[in-house]
Amino acid sequence: MISRVMSAELAEHAGQRVTIAGWVHRRRRLKSVSFLIVRDRTGLAQVVSGGDLPPEESVVEVTGTVTASTAAPGGFELVAPEIEVLSEPCGAPPFDLYRPALTASLPTILDHAPVALRHPLLRAPLEISAASVAGFRETLDGLGFTEIHTPKIVASATESGANVFGIDYFGRRAYLAQSPQFYKQAMVGVFERVYEVGPVFRAEPHDTVRHLAQYTSLDAELGFVRDHRDVMAVLREVVAGMLESLRARAGSALDVLGVVPPSVPAEIPAVHFADAQRLTGSDEPDLSPAHERLLSEWAVREHGSEFLFVTGYPMAKRPFYTHPDPARPGYSNGFDLLFRGLELVTGGQRLHRYDDYVAALAQRGESTEAYEGYLQAFRYGMPPHGGFALGLERWTARLTGAANIRQTTAFPRDLHRLSP
Amino acid sequence: MISRVMSAELAEHAGQRVTIAGWVHRRRRLKSVSFLIVRDRTGLAQVVSGGDLPPEESVVEVTGTVTASTAAPGGFELVAPEIEVLSEPCGAPPFDLYRPALTASLPTILDHAPVALRHPLLRAPLEISAASVAGFRETLDGLGFTEIHTPKIVASATESGANVFGIDYFGRRAYLAQSPQFYKQAMVGVFERVYEVGPVFRAEPHDTVRHLAQYTSLDAELGFVRDHRDVMAVLREVVAGMLESLRARAGSALDVLGVVPPSVPAEIPAVHFADAQRLTGSDEPDLSPAHERLLSEWAVREHGSEFLFVTGYPMAKRPFYTHPDPARPGYSNGFDLLFRGLELVTGGQRLHRYDDYVAALAQRGESTEAYEGYLQAFRYGMPPHGGFALGLERWTARLTGAANIRQTTAFPRDLHRLSP
Repeated sequence: MISRVMSAELAEHAGQRVTIAGWVHRRRRLKSVSFLIVRDRTGLAQVVSGGDLPPEESVVEVTGTVTASTAAPGGFELVAPEIEVLSEPCGAPPFDLYRPALTASLPTILDHAPVALRHPLLRAPLEISAASVAGFRETLDGLGFTEIHTPKIVASATESGANVFGIDYFGRRAYLAQSPQFYKQAMVGVFERVYEVGPVFRAEPHDTVRHLAQYTSLDAELGFVRDHRDVMAVLREVVAGMLESLRARAGSALDVLGVVPPSVPAEIPAVHFADAQRLTGSDEPDLSPAHERLLSEWAVREHGSEFLFVTGYPMAKRPFYTHPDPARPGYSNGFDLLFRGLELVTGGQRLHRYDDYVAALAQRGESTEAYEGYLQAFRYGMPPHGGFALGLERWTARLTGAANIRQTTAFPRDLHRLSP
Repeated sequence: MISRVMSAELAEHAGQRVTIAGWVHRRRRLKSVSFLIVRDRTGLAQVVSGGDLPPEESVVEVTGTVTASTAAPGGFELVAPEIEVLSEPCGAPPFDLYRPALTASLPTILDHAPVALRHPLLRAPLEISAASVAGFRETLDGLGFTEIHTPKIVASATESGANVFGIDYFGRRAYLAQSPQFYKQAMVGVFERVYEVGPVFRAEPHDTVRHLAQYTSLDAELGFVRDHRDVMAVLREVVAGMLESLRARAGSALDVLGVVPPSVPAEIPAVHFADAQRLTGSDEPDLSPAHERLLSEWAVREHGSEFLFVTGYPMAKRPFYTHPDPARPGYSNGFDLLFRGLELVTGGQRLHRYDDYVAALAQRGESTEAYEGYLQAFRYGMPPHGGFALGLERWTARLTGAANIRQTTAFPRDLHRLSP
C-alpha cells in the first residue's frame, strides 16, 4: 500500500515529515506563495508550495513537514513539499468541485455522477446511508435476526401486477422482484427473525421527486408476535439504532450537511387510521401526501415527535397478506411510520394460516395457483408474524432535507435514466 | 411479543415454570408417556406429556416445569405441560423434518424449500453464509471501507456480451448487472475504499453444480495501492475475518455440519501463472477445473495451505480493465484465489489512466461509446486501484462440502428453476 497518513491525522504528526495522498481539490497561486488543497477520504489538507502545481483532480502523493497553521483545515499544513503526480486528469472537470456547492442542474450532476459525487456535499448523503444501514443490521443482529438473500428474479409479481419490470429468463417470462415479501415470510418459518438489505424494483411510470425504479429496501420480518404492536416496538429499536449509528459513524457527513439527527421517543406515538381521518378532515380510505404532512405536524405539536405511527389502515387498501384487526372489521393490523411528513416505513402483522390466505385471495378474485411456492410455508405451520420495509433513499432524503430522492443515491434509475 | 424462553436457555431456568414456543419437530407416543420435541431458532427442547399431542410442524406454545433429564437435548426437559396450538399444519410435510437427513432428491427439496429449509442440516449453510457476510463487512469497516449500493439495471453488459439477462426498461432494452465492477471502480474516486454485498446475474446457459443465474457477490475495491499485491493482502484479511466471524457467530451451524473452518496462513502462498502451468504440465492460457484441483493439492502439500493465489494471468484471458504486469509483457496484475480446488475469488489491479482505457478498448476492437459513463471517472484523476469479488454461495459450498451450489442458497435460480 502507498505509505501515507490521512489528512485528518496531521495533528498527530506535528513537526514530522510525512506523506499524504489524494486528489488536488484546489490549487491557488498567490503573488509569493501557492497553496495546494489535497482531498482524501478523511478530509482536506493544505500544502504550501513555491513551485508549479498540478491541476484540480490530479491524483498526488505529497511529502512534507507538518507545521501548525491557523489558516489551514485542521490547524496543520505541509510545508517544503515534494509532489508526485500519480494520475493526471484529461481536462478540467465539468464543475469546480472546490466550490462550496455545485451550481449545475440536477440532470447535469447525475450525468456526471462519478465526478460530481467527489464533492463533499454530494458524498455526505451516501455516507449517511452507509452508516444507517450499519445501524439497521447491528440492531437486528442484537435481537437475534438472521440475514438472508432472496431472489430478485421471480415468476410472478409480488405486490401487484402493476409497475413490474419484465425479463427474458431463458426464453420464459419473468419479473424483477418488487419486494422480498414472500421470501422473508417463508424464512420466518426457518429462522423466526430475518432481515434483508437489497435492491427492489418498481417500474414507476411517473417522474416524481420521491420515486426510483431501483431502491434499497431494508426489510425485516419476525415470528411469535402477539400482533402488529410487537413489530412496531422492534421498528422503534431499529430506527433508534440507525440514528445512533449515524452519530457514531457519520459525524462528519452530518456536520458537512448541517444535519442534526432527530431523537426517537421511547414509545413512538401512534394514531389509528380512523382518528387520523378525523384529524385531517378526510373520509378517503387512504392518506394523501398532504394528509401525511398534516399528521406529522400534529405529532410534533402534540407529542414532540418527528415520528408517528398510523395504525389500522383499511383492509381494502392493504395487500392480501395483511392480517385484519380482529376487533374492528374492515380495519387491518397494518401500519405506516411517518417521518417528517412522509411515509417512511410500511409494515404490519401478516396472515399466518393457510386457510386465511386461500380466503383472502378468493375474496380478491385471485387464484392460489400463482402463489403456490409462497403458500407452502403456511401449509406447514407458521407462527403469528409481521414485519416492515424501510426505503433507504427515502430515509436519507428525509434526514438530509434533500428535495429530490435522486440526491440520495449514487446512480439513480428512473423513467428516463439508465446511465451512468 | 409472546413471552418465552428459548430452548437453549432451559438450563438457566431449572425448577421454574416457563413458556417455550416453536414448531413441533417430532411427537413420540410410548406406552405410558409421550414426548414432544419443540424446535425454535436456538435448537430443540423436549416436553414430557401424558395427553394428546399436536402433529409435526404445528406451531405451539408450551408452558411447563424445567426438570433435569439426561435423555433430553441440553440436559433439561419440560414436564407437566400446558400446550397451546398457535397454528396447525394442513397435513404432513412432504418429508420428515425430524429425521437426521432428508432423503428426498435435490429437485424435490428445492421445490419445497420453505419447508425443507427448516431442517437443521439445510438451514445450517444459510447461517454460515450470514456469519461470513458479517465478517466480510466487519473486516472492511475496520479498514476504512464504505458500503455502497449500485444499479442492478444497466444500459450495457458489464463483463461481456454473453450470459446477460435482457429487461424491458420502459420500452428500452436494458440488462441485469453481471457485476458492480464499473460502479465500484468509479466509487474509489469518491470514497477510496468501497464494498458492496449484492445480487449479480448471469444467464448461464449450462446446468452445472457450480453456477447460479443469481448469486451474492461480495465485492471490494480500493485505491492507492502499489499493485495487485496490496489487494491480495486486504483479501487475506477479509478471508481471515470471515472465518473468525464463522467461529464466533455460527458455531452451532458448524457443529451440525461437522465443519472445521480452515486456518489462513499469515501470508497466503502465491504462484505465478507461468509457474502454475509448469506445475500442471499445461500450456493453455487458462486453468481448467482439473488444473485448479492439482494446484490446490500442491499448495496443501508444499505450503500446508488450503488457500492459494495464482497471479499474473495472461492479459488475453482477463477483462479489458485489467492492469498489465509492467515487468512481464503479456501477463497481468490479475489474480485468482483458489480454495479447496476451486477458484473462489477473482481480482487484480485495474487500469487507472483514461488513455490506457481507450487503448485497451481499441485493442479489443471496442469503441469507448458504450463505456462513456464509466470512463468519466478516469478522465478526472483516479489513483492506482484494484479489488476483488468473492461468490458467497461458492464460499459456503467449499466450506460445507456441498456437492451442489444449490444447497447453499435458499431459493436458487438456474436455467430451469424460477420458483419458489
